[in-house]
Amino acid sequence: MFLPVIMSGGAGSRLWPVSRETLPKPFIELPDGGTLLQKTLQRAASLDGVERVLTVTNKEYYFLTRDEYQVTGTPVAHDYLLEPVGRNTAPAVAAAARYAGGKYGEDTVLLVLPADHLIGNQETFSKAVAAATELARNGWLVTFGVEPVRPETGYGYIESGEKIGKTDAHKVARFVEKPDLQTAKEYIASGRFTWNSGMFCFTAGNMIAALREFAPEVLTSVEQTLQGSNPEITPVVLNEEIFALSPDISIDYAVMERSSKVAVIGADFDWSDIGSWSALAELVKPDARGNRINGETLLVDVDNCYIQSESRIVAGIGLDNLLVVDTPDALLVAHQSRAQDVKAVVKQLKLKSHATANYHRKVHRPWGTYTVLEEGNNFKIKRIEVKPGASLSLQMHHHRSEHWIVVSGMAKVVNGERELLVNKNESTYIPAGHKHRLENPGVLDLVMIEVQSGEYLGEDDIVRFQDNYGRVP
Amino acid sequence: MFLPVIMSGGAGSRLWPVSRETLPKPFIELPDGGTLLQKTLQRAASLDGVERVLTVTNKEYYFLTRDEYQVTGTPVAHDYLLEPVGRNTAPAVAAAARYAGGKYGEDTVLLVLPADHLIGNQETFSKAVAAATELARNGWLVTFGVEPVRPETGYGYIESGEKIGKTDAHKVARFVEKPDLQTAKEYIASGRFTWNSGMFCFTAGNMIAALREFAPEVLTSVEQTLQGSNPEITPVVLNEEIFALSPDISIDYAVMERSSKVAVIGADFDWSDIGSWSALAELVKPDARGNRINGETLLVDVDNCYIQSESRIVAGIGLDNLLVVDTPDALLVAHQSRAQDVKAVVKQLKLKSHATANYHRKVHRPWGTYTVLEEGNNFKIKRIEVKPGASLSLQMHHHRSEHWIVVSGMAKVVNGERELLVNKNESTYIPAGHKHRLENPGVLDLVMIEVQSGEYLGEDDIVRFQDNYGRVP
Repeated sequence: MFLPVIMSGGAGSRLWPVSRETLPKPFIELPDGGTLLQKTLQRAASLDGVERVLTVTNKEYYFLTRDEYQVTGTPVAHDYLLEPVGRNTAPAVAAAARYAGGKYGEDTVLLVLPADHLIGNQETFSKAVAAATELARNGWLVTFGVEPVRPETGYGYIESGEKIGKTDAHKVARFVEKPDLQTAKEYIASGRFTWNSGMFCFTAGNMIAALREFAPEVLTSVEQTLQGSNPEITPVVLNEEIFALSPDISIDYAVMERSSKVAVIGADFDWSDIGSWSALAELVKPDARGNRINGETLLVDVDNCYIQSESRIVAGIGLDNLLVVDTPDALLVAHQSRAQDVKAVVKQLKLKSHATANYHRKVHRPWGTYTVLEEGNNFKIKRIEVKPGASLSLQMHHHRSEHWIVVSGMAKVVNGERELLVNKNESTYIPAGHKHRLENPGVLDLVMIEVQSGEYLGEDDIVRFQDNYGRVP
Repeated sequence: MFLPVIMSGGAGSRLWPVSRETLPKPFIELPDGGTLLQKTLQRAASLDGVERVLTVTNKEYYFLTRDEYQVTGTPVAHDYLLEPVGRNTAPAVAAAARYAGGKYGEDTVLLVLPADHLIGNQETFSKAVAAATELARNGWLVTFGVEPVRPETGYGYIESGEKIGKTDAHKVARFVEKPDLQTAKEYIASGRFTWNSGMFCFTAGNMIAALREFAPEVLTSVEQTLQGSNPEITPVVLNEEIFALSPDISIDYAVMERSSKVAVIGADFDWSDIGSWSALAELVKPDARGNRINGETLLVDVDNCYIQSESRIVAGIGLDNLLVVDTPDALLVAHQSRAQDVKAVVKQLKLKSHATANYHRKVHRPWGTYTVLEEGNNFKIKRIEVKPGASLSLQMHHHRSEHWIVVSGMAKVVNGERELLVNKNESTYIPAGHKHRLENPGVLDLVMIEVQSGEYLGEDDIVRFQDNYGRVP
């Protein structure tokens, strides 16, 4: 069996203000409308013989991930391993190998695909994967080395050693983390170095054996967290207390750099880690003056700028080499040469506990989304969108009452002792202290405007009685 | 009698996106929270012996002007002349002179103050006005010449001629419009030239006589539009058809450049026409790196920038000499050296009939304001604020129904045949076709959220039956 393993973590703070902890890089909408996560799934599903995919992600992203996958309409089955806390790649890979080995057999070939980069050429990718699969079946732990196109100092490099038999692959001589510029230039000149793409291919059994030899404490804690969970029931939520005991190390460091059975396959496909706004900008076709635009603009003497705006018009005059990224609650204006420093901004915002460091105004929930449209003195207005068939928890608020007005679709509402249907252009009122529940019984999205009124309007004023998504303590 | 005449027109398109046709330069909030119009009234009211002020403005700005004046709490009486269409300064000055001459006598001294500039030093201003009043009583038409501090090519200049008796004033030798840079430099070097501030002082009778001599067609059309209006009832709305016949010329061109009885008084007070974002930026104290900030920012290696934001955080990285002005629906990013070109942007927006060229999301009405919070498919959400004692028209919509939720204050509502009080945290529903009226009977502002629902939500779907502000056809 051949099983792609999609790993989606990574905040991508260099892509703030669009990428935030609650909607990180794999989930942000790219200029073509897709997301890195969607593209990763489609890429995996296009490979020969793929019938199911295993996704390892944080439990906070489970519903978001399912929604993303659903949008693609990709006809594959899904397994999920949900991490209770963010850990590095070694525990995630270990969990994937142990889970897949147990469920599908230790000779299952796993293809590990991080969901935070882009690959241009599916055909070359497929060929590289086929070659890697062959090597994996012969006992190799396979890495994919991307031909470097610039002396990048932010990536890891792989040095190729001797050729492996009649294949195009090489043994790995060594891994090097983020070299300085001079060293990076020498690497490129030597022709022996490639970028470490973070993708891997191996059998479950070989990875388990390697972990047992080189990182037994990672394997042990992962095995313990999987004990007692039923692999037939998906998603599998890893036990928080035990998983947190696993060392926070990368699979490169835990296994790849130590095993002598590691191969590198030249990855001859376009590869970008979309590591900054400059990288993302390259996905947009430039106009005659080198401007790349994603949104509504009016430009006078503007050159070589990237401008992205969700809903506002951006007027630019006399600008050169700037990045302008506009969102409903935060605006970024940066010189192109400083794209890496967006990370520093996010760090400072986190130190200040600024809401825009982690949260968007649109918040994703298992049942849909809500967006805060306005907050004022003792009132808050939200647009609430509920997916067909979905339902919020049966809940109650102590300090606020809520007016609900349906503007699209149909709502089924529990309001105290009553149960009623609220149609488009109808409203209902939920007094403070009333148990209530909102459900979308229809087949169209339900869009509702909620006006909250009360002395205290924090999200933590909620008592949940019943919930379809396991959120009742 | 001494009567300040405040003239407030002028779109101030160089201050877009804050200044727009529906809320032009005199009305925009400056960094200190005041407006040019408020400051002009306060400046006028602080002069010796001022008990009333005459305001000449477009009828569209009447209620807005009254609100602005009220905020200042300035204890002066008001006369208003409302222009039905935008004309240049000659018809406005003529109307002021004719109206004041008729109502208060032709020896009334008028001080014309455009509401689109700032004056730093009230004491020096008062002294200059006192000197001008003296000259006006002696038959002079007096201009105020500002000492030039740079070879500005965007202003008009006044060349001083011979000294007038024992005063500090001079006869005007000539007026020059917008010289080129070389000429402007020569003017400054000569010591004989000052900037034309646009302020004037004269008696009503002398101005009427000058108009009769040099611009009789302006005077005639203004006299005709005033005929039949009762000067005791304010505001006086000038007749549109007749007023539109008046030549569209400036008072400088119509009278000042032609009369031999024109004096110039050196205006030794700080004067700024707030003609661009660069000029407005100077009102904000710079930090150690030369940045002037009006809003929430997070800056890394940013120098000499002006950043203004109403509600969004602005992150800047590696910027120098930029203007960033952020509003709810439009963003401006411009190099400081290109501040004048904002005008070109507005021109292009107008050609495209882009809403942000003329309108803000917050719309001022005689009874208060409304702000569109969100528009979606078949729904629109507004925050409506009604001033104490104010009332919207009795009206009806054919195509939309409205949900009203009071979040602050108290509403008196006519809804079809019923009349009811709607308290904070209560709601009411107005079906399409129902006659309705909203009133704030209280002493606090009424804040209401309106959710409109319907196939057509244009502002023109309104039938007015009764209106306190003369808006019933």
